[in-house]
Amino acid sequence: MKSHVRVLLAFVLATAFGLAPDSRALAQTDPLVSWNDGPAKQAMVEFIHATTDHASPKFVPPEERIATFDQDGTLWVEHPMYTQVVYCLDRVPAVVKEKPELAKVEPFKTVLSGSRAAIAKLPMDDLFKILAATLTGMSVEEFQAEVKRWLDTARDPRWKRSHTELTYLPMIELLKYLRANGYRTYIVTGGGQDFVRVYAEEVYGIPPEQVVGTASGTRYGYDKNGRPFLTKEPKLLLNDNNAGKPEGIHLMIGRRPYAAFGNSTGDRQMLEYTKAGDGAPLAMLVLHDDAKREYAYGPALGLPDSKVGTFTQALHDEATKHGWVVISMKSDWRRVFAFEQ
Amino acid sequence: MKSHVRVLLAFVLATAFGLAPDSRALAQTDPLVSWNDGPAKQAMVEFIHATTDHASPKFVPPEERIATFDQDGTLWVEHPMYTQVVYCLDRVPAVVKEKPELAKVEPFKTVLSGSRAAIAKLPMDDLFKILAATLTGMSVEEFQAEVKRWLDTARDPRWKRSHTELTYLPMIELLKYLRANGYRTYIVTGGGQDFVRVYAEEVYGIPPEQVVGTASGTRYGYDKNGRPFLTKEPKLLLNDNNAGKPEGIHLMIGRRPYAAFGNSTGDRQMLEYTKAGDGAPLAMLVLHDDAKREYAYGPALGLPDSKVGTFTQALHDEATKHGWVVISMKSDWRRVFAFEQ
Repeated sequence: MKSHVRVLLAFVLATAFGLAPDSRALAQTDPLVSWNDGPAKQAMVEFIHATTDHASPKFVPPEERIATFDQDGTLWVEHPMYTQVVYCLDRVPAVVKEKPELAKVEPFKTVLSGSRAAIAKLPMDDLFKILAATLTGMSVEEFQAEVKRWLDTARDPRWKRSHTELTYLPMIELLKYLRANGYRTYIVTGGGQDFVRVYAEEVYGIPPEQVVGTASGTRYGYDKNGRPFLTKEPKLLLNDNNAGKPEGIHLMIGRRPYAAFGNSTGDRQMLEYTKAGDGAPLAMLVLHDDAKREYAYGPALGLPDSKVGTFTQALHDEATKHGWVVISMKSDWRRVFAFEQ
Repeated sequence: MKSHVRVLLAFVLATAFGLAPDSRALAQTDPLVSWNDGPAKQAMVEFIHATTDHASPKFVPPEERIATFDQDGTLWVEHPMYTQVVYCLDRVPAVVKEKPELAKVEPFKTVLSGSRAAIAKLPMDDLFKILAATLTGMSVEEFQAEVKRWLDTARDPRWKRSHTELTYLPMIELLKYLRANGYRTYIVTGGGQDFVRVYAEEVYGIPPEQVVGTASGTRYGYDKNGRPFLTKEPKLLLNDNNAGKPEGIHLMIGRRPYAAFGNSTGDRQMLEYTKAGDGAPLAMLVLHDDAKREYAYGPALGLPDSKVGTFTQALHDEATKHGWVVISMKSDWRRVFAFEQ
């Protein structure tokens, strides 16, 4: 008998004798092994029991099981600079090579200078010019190939690792735990939808159609052989931050999530919207309080605000008031990265 | 032994003895029983075999199996007026009741007159005013409840049936046939995304997150109890017609379909984009040539153009040139509607 037949037969027998196979699996291995016991882990386990047990008054039918995750600072490192911004800055020399006249124009001149201090001081308008120049104007396929090439070679300066290795192991376990319980996991990110879709399936197990992000328009056209293709246009369709997150969820999913995970004021409305739904929805916020294993930043810790993932005291207060669960990276996570010993 | 256990056991035994359960099922019942034998039916069956047989050079991995369907004129009746336009016209009295000043303003005055001839002559700009007034300005939940109420009571004047009964049985079979073979079926409609999502799951088995349509923006806000909600805004985000269809597919799905189905020039770019993909993609067009059981209309039949689903001779020529399959409603469909004897 083939091995997959044996597995199926075991499933049939387990079902015949009333043993639910998932409860057996749970008893054997902890799906959240990188989480320390505590209120955060407990909240997740209770949420799964409350929403997947048919006998529970909070039971959620499988087709409605939607969980949404912010990416930067929630699924992978965002400090000191969003990875996509690093990508855009790294792309500037290639863009200037194609359009040499940009070399003498700001903000490209500053980026080419390589001065980290000067680049960090660029105003938001200049940053948008860099994003537009490096993220649009090419075909969708050219963009995807370019991002893949960059991810294969770029290394984070602190860990000397590829950016896709800087994903949080406890959150990867949580994604799998939710999916094993019938939840469809979505990314809802302020980052570029097309950028994140390049690696989300491989890194998070999240397919392109489940990535909602800041999106620019595309323009349909034909190449010289009459073959149609889409060009990325500098026209903002969805700014998937703050109120844009629930708006983007409605546009792209059309259902209210039952669980949402974030780490900053940009995720506030997504968590509010989720928590205002029926049943026993779950809202959680990652707090970056681990300077040793990752970073500690943000006003909620009494630390200066940074350009990334602002976690204000007001957000912390709202979390407490509305029963959102704060995840302390320092005390709730046994391991942060898969590459740690 | 419970009956579902018996089914599972049969599956295990069939697998053990090398019998693929789907081929047995196909031998027993024809999944496309409402289709006459002919080139259209043959093209669909060959497409499924070519893309789901592991040994085939055109095999498509399950995660990439995407099929997109236009709705009006492809999945349900669009003639003589799109169902959603009927909804909007029916809503005008309620809108005017809330804003009495509109009663004396065009185009509302004409709609209230009830003159079908005058309404049919309204220019496109006036139609947009009616759409904006009846489809926006309320919460997402209010809109959904309103559409549900309308669908429950509105009847088509010719068949005296609810609009959701006027879906084409052969196309419903095709949706199921594709899904049974691992394809995810999407609607990609020029109609309103929020409108179609209200009934798509019940009528077509297509969940809200797989409905791509013309979409207006929403605005996040709070009610007097501080509970967040989304208001539908008169701000067009995606005009999901013509080039907007492949652009919408990229935005909402992020993958190129392997099969696409339409019936008019509004679907042209979606079919071109699909057919330009790798492997053996399938593109099909429904031709409304059955005046007796449904309608016959459009220039490709030498008939006058109508305000709905324009099927030009140029589209017919492009179909022939690029190997798109034209479905003749008259000769390819054994039955048109489920309610027919």
